[in-house]
Order: sequence, then structure tokens, then C-alpha cells
Amino acid sequence: MFDDKLKEECGVFGVYNNNEFDTSRLTYYGLFALQHRGQESAGIAVNNKGTILYRKEMGMVSEIFDDVVLDYLKGHSAIGHVRYSTTGESYAENAQPLVIKYTKGHMAIAHNGNITNASKIKKELEEQGTIFQTTSDTEVIAALLSRIRIKYSAIEDALREVMTIIKGAYSLLIMTPNKLIAVRDPLGMRPLVIGKKEDSYVFSSESCAFDSLGIKFIRDVEPGEMIVVNNEGIKSIQTEVPKKSASCIFEYIYFARPDSIMDGIEVYSARYKAGIELAKEHPVDADVVVGVPDSGLAAAHGFAHASGIKYVGGFMKNRYVGRTFIQPSQEMRELGVHMKLNPIRSQIEGKRVVMIDDSLVRGTTSKKIVNLLKAAGATEVHVRISSPPVKHSCYFGIDTPERKNLIAGNMSIDGIKDLIGADSLGYISNEGLLSTCKDGKRDYCMACFNGKYPMDVDDEEEK
Amino acid sequence: MFDDKLKEECGVFGVYNNNEFDTSRLTYYGLFALQHRGQESAGIAVNNKGTILYRKEMGMVSEIFDDVVLDYLKGHSAIGHVRYSTTGESYAENAQPLVIKYTKGHMAIAHNGNITNASKIKKELEEQGTIFQTTSDTEVIAALLSRIRIKYSAIEDALREVMTIIKGAYSLLIMTPNKLIAVRDPLGMRPLVIGKKEDSYVFSSESCAFDSLGIKFIRDVEPGEMIVVNNEGIKSIQTEVPKKSASCIFEYIYFARPDSIMDGIEVYSARYKAGIELAKEHPVDADVVVGVPDSGLAAAHGFAHASGIKYVGGFMKNRYVGRTFIQPSQEMRELGVHMKLNPIRSQIEGKRVVMIDDSLVRGTTSKKIVNLLKAAGATEVHVRISSPPVKHSCYFGIDTPERKNLIAGNMSIDGIKDLIGADSLGYISNEGLLSTCKDGKRDYCMACFNGKYPMDVDDEEEK
Amino acid sequence: MFDDKLKEECGVFGVYNNNEFDTSRLTYYGLFALQHRGQESAGIAVNNKGTILYRKEMGMVSEIFDDVVLDYLKGHSAIGHVRYSTTGESYAENAQPLVIKYTKGHMAIAHNGNITNASKIKKELEEQGTIFQTTSDTEVIAALLSRIRIKYSAIEDALREVMTIIKGAYSLLIMTPNKLIAVRDPLGMRPLVIGKKEDSYVFSSESCAFDSLGIKFIRDVEPGEMIVVNNEGIKSIQTEVPKKSASCIFEYIYFARPDSIMDGIEVYSARYKAGIELAKEHPVDADVVVGVPDSGLAAAHGFAHASGIKYVGGFMKNRYVGRTFIQPSQEMRELGVHMKLNPIRSQIEGKRVVMIDDSLVRGTTSKKIVNLLKAAGATEVHVRISSPPVKHSCYFGIDTPERKNLIAGNMSIDGIKDLIGADSLGYISNEGLLSTCKDGKRDYCMACFNGKYPMDVDDEEEK
Amino acid sequence: MFDDKLKEECGVFGVYNNNEFDTSRLTYYGLFALQHRGQESAGIAVNNKGTILYRKEMGMVSEIFDDVVLDYLKGHSAIGHVRYSTTGESYAENAQPLVIKYTKGHMAIAHNGNITNASKIKKELEEQGTIFQTTSDTEVIAALLSRIRIKYSAIEDALREVMTIIKGAYSLLIMTPNKLIAVRDPLGMRPLVIGKKEDSYVFSSESCAFDSLGIKFIRDVEPGEMIVVNNEGIKSIQTEVPKKSASCIFEYIYFARPDSIMDGIEVYSARYKAGIELAKEHPVDADVVVGVPDSGLAAAHGFAHASGIKYVGGFMKNRYVGRTFIQPSQEMRELGVHMKLNPIRSQIEGKRVVMIDDSLVRGTTSKKIVNLLKAAGATEVHVRISSPPVKHSCYFGIDTPERKNLIAGNMSIDGIKDLIGADSLGYISNEGLLSTCKDGKRDYCMACFNGKYPMDVDDEEEK
Ligand SMILES: Nc1ncnc2c1ncn2[C@@H]1O[C@H](COP(=O)(O)OP(=O)(O)O)[C@@H](O)[C@H]1O
Ligand SMILES: Nc1ncnc2c1ncn2[C@@H]1O[C@H](COP(=O)(O)OP(=O)(O)O)[C@@H](O)[C@H]1O
Ligand SMILES: Nc1ncnc2c1ncn2[C@@H]1O[C@H](COP(=O)(O)OP(=O)(O)O)[C@@H](O)[C@H]1O
Ligand SMILES: Nc1ncnc2c1ncn2[C@@H]1O[C@H](COP(=O)(O)OP(=O)(O)O)[C@@H](O)[C@H]1O
Ligand code: SF4
Ligand code: SF4
Ligand code: SF4
Ligand code: SF4
Ligand SMILES: [Mg+2]
Ligand SMILES: [Mg+2]
Ligand SMILES: [Mg+2]
Ligand SMILES: [Mg+2]
Repeated sequence: MFDDKLKEECGVFGVYNNNEFDTSRLTYYGLFALQHRGQESAGIAVNNKGTILYRKEMGMVSEIFDDVVLDYLKGHSAIGHVRYSTTGESYAENAQPLVIKYTKGHMAIAHNGNITNASKIKKELEEQGTIFQTTSDTEVIAALLSRIRIKYSAIEDALREVMTIIKGAYSLLIMTPNKLIAVRDPLGMRPLVIGKKEDSYVFSSESCAFDSLGIKFIRDVEPGEMIVVNNEGIKSIQTEVPKKSASCIFEYIYFARPDSIMDGIEVYSARYKAGIELAKEHPVDADVVVGVPDSGLAAAHGFAHASGIKYVGGFMKNRYVGRTFIQPSQEMRELGVHMKLNPIRSQIEGKRVVMIDDSLVRGTTSKKIVNLLKAAGATEVHVRISSPPVKHSCYFGIDTPERKNLIAGNMSIDGIKDLIGADSLGYISNEGLLSTCKDGKRDYCMACFNGKYPMDVDDEEEK
Repeated sequence: MFDDKLKEECGVFGVYNNNEFDTSRLTYYGLFALQHRGQESAGIAVNNKGTILYRKEMGMVSEIFDDVVLDYLKGHSAIGHVRYSTTGESYAENAQPLVIKYTKGHMAIAHNGNITNASKIKKELEEQGTIFQTTSDTEVIAALLSRIRIKYSAIEDALREVMTIIKGAYSLLIMTPNKLIAVRDPLGMRPLVIGKKEDSYVFSSESCAFDSLGIKFIRDVEPGEMIVVNNEGIKSIQTEVPKKSASCIFEYIYFARPDSIMDGIEVYSARYKAGIELAKEHPVDADVVVGVPDSGLAAAHGFAHASGIKYVGGFMKNRYVGRTFIQPSQEMRELGVHMKLNPIRSQIEGKRVVMIDDSLVRGTTSKKIVNLLKAAGATEVHVRISSPPVKHSCYFGIDTPERKNLIAGNMSIDGIKDLIGADSLGYISNEGLLSTCKDGKRDYCMACFNGKYPMDVDDEEEK
Repeated sequence: MFDDKLKEECGVFGVYNNNEFDTSRLTYYGLFALQHRGQESAGIAVNNKGTILYRKEMGMVSEIFDDVVLDYLKGHSAIGHVRYSTTGESYAENAQPLVIKYTKGHMAIAHNGNITNASKIKKELEEQGTIFQTTSDTEVIAALLSRIRIKYSAIEDALREVMTIIKGAYSLLIMTPNKLIAVRDPLGMRPLVIGKKEDSYVFSSESCAFDSLGIKFIRDVEPGEMIVVNNEGIKSIQTEVPKKSASCIFEYIYFARPDSIMDGIEVYSARYKAGIELAKEHPVDADVVVGVPDSGLAAAHGFAHASGIKYVGGFMKNRYVGRTFIQPSQEMRELGVHMKLNPIRSQIEGKRVVMIDDSLVRGTTSKKIVNLLKAAGATEVHVRISSPPVKHSCYFGIDTPERKNLIAGNMSIDGIKDLIGADSLGYISNEGLLSTCKDGKRDYCMACFNGKYPMDVDDEEEK
Repeated sequence: MFDDKLKEECGVFGVYNNNEFDTSRLTYYGLFALQHRGQESAGIAVNNKGTILYRKEMGMVSEIFDDVVLDYLKGHSAIGHVRYSTTGESYAENAQPLVIKYTKGHMAIAHNGNITNASKIKKELEEQGTIFQTTSDTEVIAALLSRIRIKYSAIEDALREVMTIIKGAYSLLIMTPNKLIAVRDPLGMRPLVIGKKEDSYVFSSESCAFDSLGIKFIRDVEPGEMIVVNNEGIKSIQTEVPKKSASCIFEYIYFARPDSIMDGIEVYSARYKAGIELAKEHPVDADVVVGVPDSGLAAAHGFAHASGIKYVGGFMKNRYVGRTFIQPSQEMRELGVHMKLNPIRSQIEGKRVVMIDDSLVRGTTSKKIVNLLKAAGATEVHVRISSPPVKHSCYFGIDTPERKNLIAGNMSIDGIKDLIGADSLGYISNEGLLSTCKDGKRDYCMACFNGKYPMDVDDEEEK
């Protein structure tokens, strides 16, 4: 029922511990706060006096690590990773961090994003005899870096050259025996922030991982910036002065946690504003406003406030649906199974309902939710979506359906309205969406809405 | 952080399947919808042509059952159980349903509630030579029933006598080779509802388990009512005409799912009304209303509506905290760990905040949450609690702390306000709470608030 | 391939620890040495200052217990149990020790044997209102004992009365808050020995569990003897002066470990003598003697010695066949799968082979092994069996096939010879078998060979 | 107690299935028969129409694979691997087969042996920018092969060049989308045999894996031979005409399964002859001959036969010691724990015992076993070892202790005799050992006995 969402690929967390706190546990809790960015595998690698110890597996952070493992993972620096694995990949080989040995010793890499020319680079490397043991971009970056590393005496220089070759979106953490390096791609597509705990520097995909750990938020890593931490301190290298950035606006709409602040904007706040904007762009006469939990709630709060229509909890969301939950068979489903979401009948029955969600990708879920509301007695259901129509695939680390399954790429808004059974349907405009983020420090990628990709994308990679 | 809540003991679900649907899977999904009533063990017993097959274990419903087990659990009737197990009990022996063999064949029993004179009955039975293999009330009921059963030709008659002996709160499901029997105690303390799917009758602790399974809600089982289903149909026996019922009002406040309707009242609606009532009883001048997720949200919606103060999402709740999550050590905690709840800073900073929660038991959690809000920049925090002060222990199936740990049993409201660091504190009044349920069909137990226990409680059971 | 063996039901081990050694670990290692007596469930219960802590589960000893569990199982006395579970019983409910609460407090019982009038007693108890949660005899004994206990001030007296009621074979260990009691049935059918470690008394089904643990073997528990150990010392009660004992002779043939000494006879030695006897009773002209591992090896050693025919290892036995091994499908089997036993071709090819096994129950396995030898080039295969033909079912704790599947109950020796494809077949005679145990202290049950049951067996229990 | 044995590193199995049988299950049963060659990880990779599917994990064959996994592993060719992992390597990354993608597509490799110049090659490859994700030789071979592959149009040619670079012992199976390739090093150090099932070719480390699976043994792969199977048939390439082979003689002494035939010699038979030889070289006047199970049994049979001294089973070996068995603590051990091996007292007491074992590495185990025999009443214990004194480390795939822990490298035979408490000690002579294998087709490596390494070994690899 909830499988027509875009999928975030990854979250990263890293620390160079100059103090006495527990490196692996800090990383564990950090990853735990980033769990929403990927729930199928997780891993932690620590640098134990030059040796890299690690554990990575399929599963959620809390399933993989226990006290025994965390005690084993002793070290003065660490990087961790959570990952959403795309279908068909069996078992743990693509889990991260990737730990390798190369000419200068051991290295661990954790990556969030997507390298758009990875296939091409991979092919070139293979033609020179490189072997690959996974299908991940991360291994391509590692192989390229190792090869280029030969020419340079410092890894920073090699990395700088690598950044001129790889294209796409990437937020990288690299741990070597002596350093912890953080890199953000020149367009700043994926988020990456830096914090400080006592005298130690910490990196995370989102700031929400800092709040609960007593880590002071310092700033975002800048587009094209490389930050190197070792036991002498911290150093910033601006590899490129980007003319224009292209931060993924979908992070605010859906991926990021509401309590995170990225590139100057708090996620909840952006969503709330999108609700206000929606109320302005697509006003409607109704009795109640409900949000589809959880991603639609913030915008619903804003919409209700701006429109003056009463906000109520419209749905119960069953939170015990874990990975081991047995999906109802077709037979059961037809009998009316809606295990995960149940309308709160008292608030719906006999009411004209405004239903807010964050996005509408295939349309299948929205159709079911509208049905649920009507079956619960809603007299009218007005759907408002706090992002514009998704019409184009993403090549920057987000798993989008093929274009033919993107309903807005194939159908008019009116057609979609009919298909999902709504009485009216309103999407926020591109401008409206942009206005919710206008206080931020960046330009935004909105390619999945407007088709304006911030860079050329290799044909062979096209979906 | 969240360990100062009252704990519900159990949920039950049962079906006598006269149709072709899958008995064990229906029960699985039913239990899954009741998972919030107990998360430490679960079990299903099915009647397979007179043989009782079962599986019960520590863990959540989705962890215990997989397709192999559900295929094994074939049968035409089934009962299931979810349970919150109190500390110190090792392993699965107290998991339910209890399956026994007695003079008339096999029988399975699932129980929600607490028998207040269980120790006394147990002692008497032991003196007659009965052995007990668990510490559960359910085994006491089973042993008593089996012994009394000898005198009667029908189990209904035996059960009727048992009901004159056992005291306390109980909603029971009993499955015999030919029958499925549902019983609710004479005061109707614990909920129990009856539904119908095609020609088959279904029982559940809460109606929310029906909605998603195409089961038509019929009615509540009445206090003191015994309902017997066999392949000839359904029969109701009113064992006693209760003068006064005493349904647990805390079910509406906290235990039940917001989308359940019990004894004529929808839970969300009762909570929403409590919010309205609170706004009336304890008005305050403020900028935003926030609810403590999830149990405080519905009342917050009502409060905001009634007061006209803006409703916003005040907290991010991390939902990945499973049973395997490693609790932060003291050291980590002092560093500021608040892993599960993080304020949404933009909505709090510089604001006068009304914070709504459902109840306040020990006070430890509320204190931490008020702190979080202040640290996030709230200029004032006004706490409003949608239940009256909890001053007395419960003996009817709810796990309450000892009286000395009930903060309201030991301190004035003003003292509590200071202790939790709030700028003001308001509890709903007993009358106010009652008014939220006034449309229901019952009288209510409110003993944990007002000390008026609906029956005598044996001294030896006193906490 | 190996499923036509008789199955032993159980092994028991217990200790009353007056010294400083680790009670649960001693019991763990003791059970481990008894693992051959039952491999499907195991359990340990300890008496921790009056509270009984326990753990019992499906699986082997080494799978169930780890350091965490053994640390938890602290106590000054303990009993343990390993069990072979007959088919169709799902999950752990029949695992032992059985731990109960009765009128005098907690009690744990571990049982090896079979009560032949258990159904009758159970029925009578049920008619008085007793409920049963398992299908084990042990629970019947516990229920009976608890009921009778009421009349007496000491458990010993109650137990003595119980022993006048229950019939059959039993070696029991009973642990109460203050005592550890060991009982052997009046015919001494199942083994039970007593040992001493420093000042502490230890009981075990077989003496092999003592050797490795520094426990001094004291003596066998006598038929009809009850031994009570508490912190004041040890006391023996001879409940009955048995005229005649009836120790199970099959323990020597197959069940017991070769290194155990029971009732005065070492198992290996009895088997070796059976080989010598076989050589006398059924001499043959051949090139090599081979034993079917492991149960046929000792007799093969004796046969080779007595006959002067060369002893060689005839088979490789693959020992990695655990419970999780995937049984070959029919298709695979027809392709010639003999995964577990492979002939040593060099010793077989072109040779006249004497093949020794301990017993022949259904004949299916022997047939396959003869085939393997012929396929490996044996010119003749002479089968010698170190027990007489099994013609009758056992009712004393051993799981025998129904009579119709006992090949010797339905076919002449010549017929069996042809069926299994042997060139000759010789069974040891009843007298010959008896002679191997003539130095022992007991009379023997040989009912499965000669039909002379040492007691009447209830019709309803007949197989 | 049994930890002073040499450890075999691996076993391999592969099939190119031109028929209809189940590829993954055949491989499963094949690996199962090779389980004695490595018990800590196992893996299977199948070629499913060009895609390689695989599963590899820590654990035994029967633990890792179940029907679900084997059904998933559908394919027309497969290779499998069992592995003994040396200490300190965390988790599964070194498990095999290694599956890689390189310039010509996917490839899986399974390796048994040790490349003596792997470090050197690795360093050179790293200097050219290669990264390594494991510490195994197998990855070095894969990386080298991929790099060299660029120069050639056929993998066979590349592999031939690789064989001129890598030194040491190796039996390799390589699976590409179209081929299955088997390679044995030019000295034939590690075993590798070829068989046929219907029209399909099968490879295995040992022939024992064929017997149970209806696979016809064809012949050994020759030293330096490469065999290529594809859907057009089979092709042999002799890469080098070795002047002299150097098959590991320890395979016969200890590693291989008694029922395997390798390079023309059956293992049991070689061991039996070693027993005969020992009787000749070191005759002794005694009452009984016992073998230390299992590796000492075959030689004991031979010794008894040749000497005329009576053969008896001297020990009970407890076979339930799995990987999860809790090792007795020091305290327990001092109390006399000998959990795994118990003497059969009746055969030992008052006897002069000849005790045969296959090898004596550190001496710690033999010392304990001699003690056990004396404690059981042996009047004399004469130890006979069916291999010569182990004085040198092995560099060819066998895990030997450092030289300083090889007792025979540091002490005279008389010294060892005293140390282990034997009344006499006799090792087979180098010539005697050689004579047991004289009918074979090979020359033998005996370097761990005589120090004559069949090739130069890089200093840096020296132990
Ligand atoms: N730790 C978290 N707990 C709960 N919700 C979170 C968490 N992290 C992120 N979210 C928010 O939850 C939303 C996704 O959940 P939801 O809408 O409930 O499910 P779905 O992915 O099916 O739409 C995202 O918008 C995300 O911002
Ligand atoms: N399936 C469910 N999913 C989410 N919340 C539920 C569910 N069922 C019940 N609830 C509600 O959640 C509340 C309890 O959760 P919450 O307040 O988040 O945690 P806590 O028990 O720590 O206070 C109860 O009020 C209950 O009514
Ligand atoms: N711990 C033990 N290890 C090995 N063999 C044992 C052990 N205990 C008992 N045995 C002997 O092994 C024999 C049973 O094994 P075996 O003949 O190999 O298998 P099967 O039960 O298939 O005939 C019995 O005779 C028993 O005495
Ligand atoms: N599948 C098998 N089952 C039993 N023994 C085997 C098997 N395969 C090989 N063996 C033999 O067992 C011997 C190793 O076992 P053993 O001597 O009992 O243990 P240890 O390794 O402690 O000396 C080897 O000589 C080996 O040839
Ligand atoms: S295409 Fe859409 S999802 Fe992808 S980076 Fe751009 S805005 Fe984000
Ligand atoms: S005392 Fe409180 S919790 Fe217990 S039944 Fe009464 S109202 Fe419910
Ligand atoms: S019938 Fe046979 S197996 Fe049973 S007790 Fe008697 S001798 Fe033993
Ligand atoms: S050194 Fe010894 S173990 Fe190693 S290959 Fe040579 S003979 Fe075998
Ligand atoms: Mg959503
Ligand atoms: Mg709450
Ligand atoms: Mg046998
Ligand atoms: Mg050995």
C-alpha cells in the first residue's frame, strides 16, 4: 500500500574522536537517528590504531549491533552507513561502509548519492584489469581513487582529481588510518553537515543526529568542499567554486526528518509553509483538514492554519509493520485489508475532507486512501499535494519508478483526480514550492518536477 | 524515557469460521491490529477437527508467525492473544493462549484482565492437590473451571458458576472442540466486542481489528454476558444483571487505539473532547499547542481547536526504537541523549508553548520533555494533562507503579508543576473526564483517580 | 537410512551441591555426556534459595545453553533432562524438567521411562477436575504426587504411595526447595546411578557422565529404592523388596554409551562378549569382519577376535549430519545417495565380508548396507546381529515400531536373510545374549525378544 | 584438548550440468561430503543464464543452506567451497567462492591451497592501483587474472600466464558465464579429481563426494593441468610438463577422508599400511592395541593385524561437541574434565596398551590421552605415531603452529616420550611412510617432516 514512494538511498555518519567518549556507540546512535534514510542494511567501521574493524549486515541498526559488537568496534574514528537496497540484490555484499586495502593501507568509505558516470568509469577500469565485487558506486569511487592515489603523495590531491572525474551526487565519508575526510559534490545535491562534540568533529547526513547526542551543529559542508580531520585539527579545501548549487528539494518535501536543518532551512518548517502555500494556491470549502501520516502531517498543519479549516487526526497508522510482517495475500486484500492505515471515523463521517500528502508518484496509494475516506463516510475528499507533479526520473541517488509509472508524466491533473476518486486535486506549483525554501543558502534541483537536470546524464544510465 | 506509563496487560482475538477464509491468517492480522495492547508475547491456538494446534512465544506478532507456522495452524476456529509481560518472568511459560486437556477434551483460553482473588482460589485448589505450571490467572481460571466442570453436563453451566467465584476484571475467550465462548466480567471492566464476517462470528478486545479485515462490527459484549458460538449458531447468556457497570475509563485516555469504538464511544473522539474540556478548565495565553506523540496528539487537536491557539507538530518521534535497541548508558544519557523525541525547533523557539499529554504517572518523562522544550527555546511551557491525577493503584489488569511512585499520590499539583519545571500545570477534572464519555452506555471505573474501587480487593493482593 | 532404530526416551542428571563448584555447569556437562539418550529437547532447573529457575527448549544441550543462561541458572541443587521427542508433538511444551507449584511450594521433576497405566490415572485425575498441559507421563506423576501429598507431612511418604499406584519403568529425579530425591522403579528397568563429588551427591542415568567430571561412582540406585538428599546428608528408603528385577537388556545392546557401567556391567564389554558369542553361535568362513558404525563396532571387535578373521574399518560415517541437514529427495536418493555411510572399498572389494550390527528392527537399513557392500565388490556378505530378533513392542520407555513393522515378528530368519540380500544371517540367541550380562546384579527384561513382559500392560496402551 | 592438529584450509566442488539434475543440491551434498576439509564457512555460486547467484556464510554446510536458498540457487553450473578460517578474521568477507565482475563479465572462483608469493603479487598490484577487500589469496588470483585477461582473447590463455606467476599450492575452480575451469598447480600439491554424472562433468577435492551421489570417478586432475568444460564438451590443457610432482603426503595421514582415493591411493589403505609398517619398525610386547578416534583408528587396525596383538575399542568419543559447545573453564578442567574422549575401562585396566595416533604436533593432546589411559589402569602405554616427527612449518595451505611450538622441532624423541608420559614412543620413519604410498602416481611433498620444500618460499612469508 505504501510502495509508491520515492526511496532515499543512504545516510552517513562519521566521527574523529579526540575525546574519551565511546566512538562506536556514538556512531550507533547517530545511525539510529538516520534510520529513516535507509532500512535494509547498516554498517559501522572503526579505525583501531590503524586496523579497520567493521560490521555490516542486512537489517536495521538496532538489529545488527549489540553490546558485544559495539565493544568489539573500539577505535578513535568511525564511519557508519544506513542503506536502502534496491530489489534483487541478494545479501550483504553491497552493504557499506566499503573497507579496502590499497597501496597506502586500509580505507573505509561510506557514500550517499549516485555517480551518473559510474558505468563508464567502471568499464574503463575493467578494461585496465580492475575487478569488482559489488554493484555499488562506492566500489567504483574506491577503485578510481586507489588508482589515482599512486600519482600523489597525499590522498587529498588524489581525491580532488577523482572529483573532476566522477559526476553526479555524492556526500562521502572516507576514513584512513590517520584521517577522516568528508566530501560533498560540487552541486551540493545530497546533504552533509558538520558538528562538534567537545574537541571532536562529527559528520552526518542530517543535523537531527546531532541533537540527541550533545553534538553542536557547526554548519553544512559546502558544495564542492572537502574537509579533512586528523589529530592535528581540521582543514577545509574548496575544490571548485561552484557557480550554482543544486540541492535536492525533495529532501525537504519527503526524505529528511522534520527536525533536521539543512542548508539553512528546517524541514518541518518548509513543509508547514508548503501547506500554507497550498491553501493559497488551491483553496477549498471544507469541514476538516487531515494529513496522511507521517509525511503529510506538517503540510496539513500549515494548510489548516492558513485556511482556518479545523485540523483533526484523520488516520490511525499502525507502526508495528516491520520487515517480517506477512503481506496479506490477494484474497485477504480484496476482503478489505487496510492494515496500516485506518480512518478515524468520527472525524470523517459526514464531513468534507481536505486530505494532504507530500507527493503522488504512482497514484496507487492515494487512490486507496481516498477510498478509505469515502468508505468512512466523507462526503467530499479534496486532495492537496505539497509537491508539484513528479514527471521525470531522478539520477541522483533517489530510486524513482520508470517514467511510464509516474502518473503525472502520463496523465493530466484532471485525469489523476478522476483516477484516485478525489473531488478535487491540487498540487503546489513549482514556484510555490521554491518559495518555501527561499530563505535557504542554495539553488535547488527540481528536475523530477521540471526536467531541468543540473548536469548532463549519460544515456546509458537513463531509466 | 517512556517507562513511566501504565501498562496494558493483554489483547484477545477469536473467530469461529463457518466460511472459507483462512482462520489463522485472520487471527494473525487481528492480533497485529491489537499489538499495542501487549508486545512481549503472542500466541494463536486453532481447533483442527478437535485437535488444538498452537504456537506461542516471546516477541511481537510479526516476529513469531511466518507463513510456515500459519500454514501449520489450520483450523475452523481460533483464538489469539498478545501480552505485556511484567518483569522477572523468564521465558514463554506464561504466554497465552493456555492450552489444556481436561475431562472433556482439549480447551484453549485467552484472557485479558486480572482476577483479584486468584491467590486465594489458587491456594484452595493447591490444598486439594492441584499443580500449577505458570503464575498466570488464566491457569487458575482453567483449573477452577475444570474442577467445576465435573458437576455439569455443559461447559456453559460450569462457566456460569466460575463467574460467581472469580472476582475482578476479565474478558475471556475459550475454545473447545465444538464451541467458541466469549465472556465479559459482570462490571464490563475490560473491553470485548463482537463482529461478523460473512456467516462467521469474531471477537476482539477492540473494534480496530475489524476495520481492516472486512469484519462488520456488531456490538459490545455486555457486562456479565457469555456468548457461545458453535456450528449451529450463536447464543447469548446473561449470567447476571449488573446493577452498575465499571468500564475502565483509562482505555479511552491511553490504552485503546484511537480508531476503536468501545461501549459506544470512539477513542479519538473522547480524547479530542478531553482536549476541549482542558481548554475550558485550564485556559492559558500562549502561541502554540503541541501534543506529546502519540498519546497526547488527539487531546492537543481538541485543545487547539477550542482555545484558538495554533496547533503545530512539536516533536519528532523516532519510531525505530524496537525491543533490541540498546539503551544509552548513564554516561551517554548525561551527554544529552534524547533519542526518541526531538523538538521541532522552529515551532518552539521564542514561543509560549502549551504541551498536552494524556497522563502523568511518575512525572519523570514529563520533566524531561519540559526540559527539551525549554532547551529548544520555549519561553513558557504550560502542561495540560487530559486525565486527572493518578493517585491509586489499579488491580484490574493494569500494571501501575506502587503508590509511593505515583507522583500525584504524594505531592500537590503545584509541587508537581515545580518538579517538572512547567510554568503552569492543569489536569482535567474527574467530572470533565467523565463528560467526554457521557454518551457511552456504561458507568466507569475511575478508581486510579478517585480511589473508588468498583469491588473489594483482597488485602493480600494489595500493592 | 538410519531411522529403523529403537529410540531411547530420556536421560536425567541431578546434583545437590554442598560444595563450591558451579551447579549449572556441572549439570550442563553431565547432560552433554548423556546427549545420546535424547537429542530433541533439553532442560535444566536449579533451586536458587527456594526459587526454581529453569530453561528448557527444543534442541541439543550445546545449542540451548550458553554462558548467559548458565550464569542465570545459579543454585545449590539442579536437575537436568535430555529427551527424544516422538513425532507430531509441536514445540517445547513436553520438554523437561517439569516445574510446578503445588501446595508445598515449587517442585521440579525429570523422568526417564514410561508409566504403563498413565492414561488410566490421567483419566481418573481428569474426572476429579485436574487439567493437563502436556502429554507427558511426567505431568501425570506430578499431578498424582501433588494430590497424594496432601495426606502426608513428608513428600517421601507421598512418593512411596505414588509408587504403589504407578506402573511401568521410571527413573525419577525430584527437586524440592530442600531436597533432591531419586527414585528407581521396583523392577529397576531404567538405569540410574549415584556418584559423589567432594561432599556432594550426584545422580545420572549413566556413569559415563561422571568420568569426565571428577565425580566418584558410588553405586547403582537399587530397584524400588528412593534416595533423599538434603543439607543434612543422604538417606535411602527401600520402598519394596523386589523379588525379581527386570533391567532393560537393550541398554547394553544399543542405548547406553559403551563406556558406561550399569548394574555391574560395562556396556562395551557386554557388546564385545556378544561378538564373541556370535562367532561361536554362527561361525562363518570369511576374509574380513566389519562393524556398522557406531553401534556395531564393539561386537565386531569381539567377533574378529573370537573368529580369528581380520578386523577392518568397513565404513566411513559422515558425522556432520545434524538436525538441519536437508534430506535428499526421492529423485536424489534413487541416484544412489548414501550420504551418511560409505564403504571403504579397499577392504571390501573381492572379499567375503562378515558385517556386524547391534540389532535389526525393520530391516530397511540393513538391506541398504548389504547393498552398499555388494556394490563395493564384496563377494559374500554374512550378517551377524548381536541381539536376538525383535518381535514385540516395548512399553517401558522405548519407542518401537508397531508390531507389523517389526520384520522378525512377521518373517522367518531365512526370509529376512533373503530380503536384506545377505548370504547368511545369524542372530545371537536369547541365552547367548543373557550370558553376556551374567556377571551383573540383575535379572533382565528381554520382552521385546521373548514377549515375556515383566508386568501386565494395560490393553488401552497396547500398540 | 584437540586443538593441536594441523588444519586443512579448504575443499572445493563444482559441476557443469548438462543434464536435468538439481545443480545446487548436487553441490550441497558434495560440499557436505567435504565438510571435514573446513567447517567454518561455506558457499555455493551458480551460473543462472549468465548471472551468478550465490550464498556464502560462516557456519557448516547444513546450517547455511536450506530448501529456500537451494531453490533460489538455480543454474546450469555451480562451484562450492568449504573453508577452515584462521583466527582473528571477523565475519564472512573471506568466505568463498569469490564472485567478481571484470572486463569479460562475471566470474566465481573457489580455491584450495596457498599462494606463497601472494604478498608480493598483491603489493605489485596495489602499486598499480588495485584495491583488495579481503585478505585471501583467492582475491589476489582474481585480480591478477583480470589484469592479464586484457591481453588475451581467451581466459585459458590468461590463466596459463597466471600459472607462470603464482607459486605454491592450488586447486582452483573457476566458473564463467560459459565455462567451468579446473586447475591444479604444477606440483599437484592439493588434490583434485574429476567425475562424470550422465553427460555432466564434476570436480571435487576428494572422490568421497562422488560415491554417494552416483558420480562416476574418472581420474585425478594432473599436476599443471587445466580442464575446461563448456556446453560443447571438455578440453584438457597441460600447461607445463612437471618434472616432479609433490603431492601433500599429509592428506593420506590425516586430512582426507578414509574412503577417498587420490592420485591412485585409497586413504584408509595407506593408513592401514602405516599401521603395519609401524608394527614392523617399532614392535612392542603388549596386551591390546587402541586407536585414538577417529584419525588413529585405521593405523591401529593395521598395527593390530601385523603385530597379532588384540584390537579393541579403547575410547568413547563424544560426537556432540559442536561449535556452540561451551569450553570448560580452567576450574572445571582441573577437576578432571575430559569431555570428548573417555577410555573404555574394561579394555584398559591392568593392560599393556599400544596407543596409535596419526600425528603428534604440539604434544599437548597426546600427553592428556596417555594420562587418561594410565588413570584408567593401563600398566604400560606405548605410543605409536603413523607419521614421522613434524619439524617444519607448511607453506602450502596447511595451518601449522610456529616452529617453536612443534615439539619435534625442539626436542628429542626420548624427550617427547618423557613429556607425554609414555613408556615408549615410536614414529614411523620417512621411508616407512613413503612406502605406504608407493603404489601411487606421484612424488610427495614431505617438507613438514624433512624440510625439503618442493619450491623456494619467499622470506617474507616465513612463519
Ligand atoms: N525517525 C523518523 N520517525 C518517523 N518519521 C520520520 C522519521 N524520519 C523521517 N520521518 C518522516 O516520515 C516520513 C515518511 O514516512 P511516512 O509518510 O509515514 O511513510 P511513507 O514512506 O509510507 O510515506 C518522511 O516524510 C520523513 O520525513
Ligand atoms: N497501532 C498503533 N500505532 C500507533 N499508536 C497507537 C497504536 N495503537 C495505539 N496507539 C496509541 O499510542 C499511544 C501510546 O503511544 P505513545 O504515547 O506514543 O507512547 P507511550 O506509551 O510511550 O506514551 C496510545 O495512546 C495508543 O492509543
Ligand atoms: N556420545 C556418543 N558418541 C558416539 N556414540 C555414542 C555415544 N553415545 C552412545 N553412542 C553409541 O552409539 C550408538 C548409536 O549410534 P549409531 O549406531 O552410530 O547410530 P544409529 O542410532 O543410527 O544406529 C549406540 O550404540 C550408542 O551406544
Ligand atoms: N566425514 C567424516 N567423518 C568422520 N571422520 C572423518 C570424516 N572425514 C574425515 N574424517 C577423518 O577424521 C579424522 C579427523 O578426526 P579426529 O581424529 O576424530 O579429530 P581430530 O581432528 O581432533 O584428530 C581425519 O583423519 C579424517 O580423515
Ligand atoms: S531529480 Fe528530484 S529527487 Fe532527484 S535530486 Fe533532483 S529534486 Fe531531488
Ligand atoms: S483503576 Fe484506573 S486503570 Fe484500573 S480499571 Fe479502574 S480506571 Fe482502569
Ligand atoms: S521390552 Fe526390550 S527395550 Fe523394552 S524394556 Fe524390555 S528389553 Fe528393554
Ligand atoms: S609441508 Fe607437509 S602438510 Fe605441507 S604440503 Fe608438504 S607434506 Fe603437506
Ligand atoms: Mg507518507
Ligand atoms: Mg505517550
Ligand atoms: Mg547403529
Ligand atoms: Mg585425531
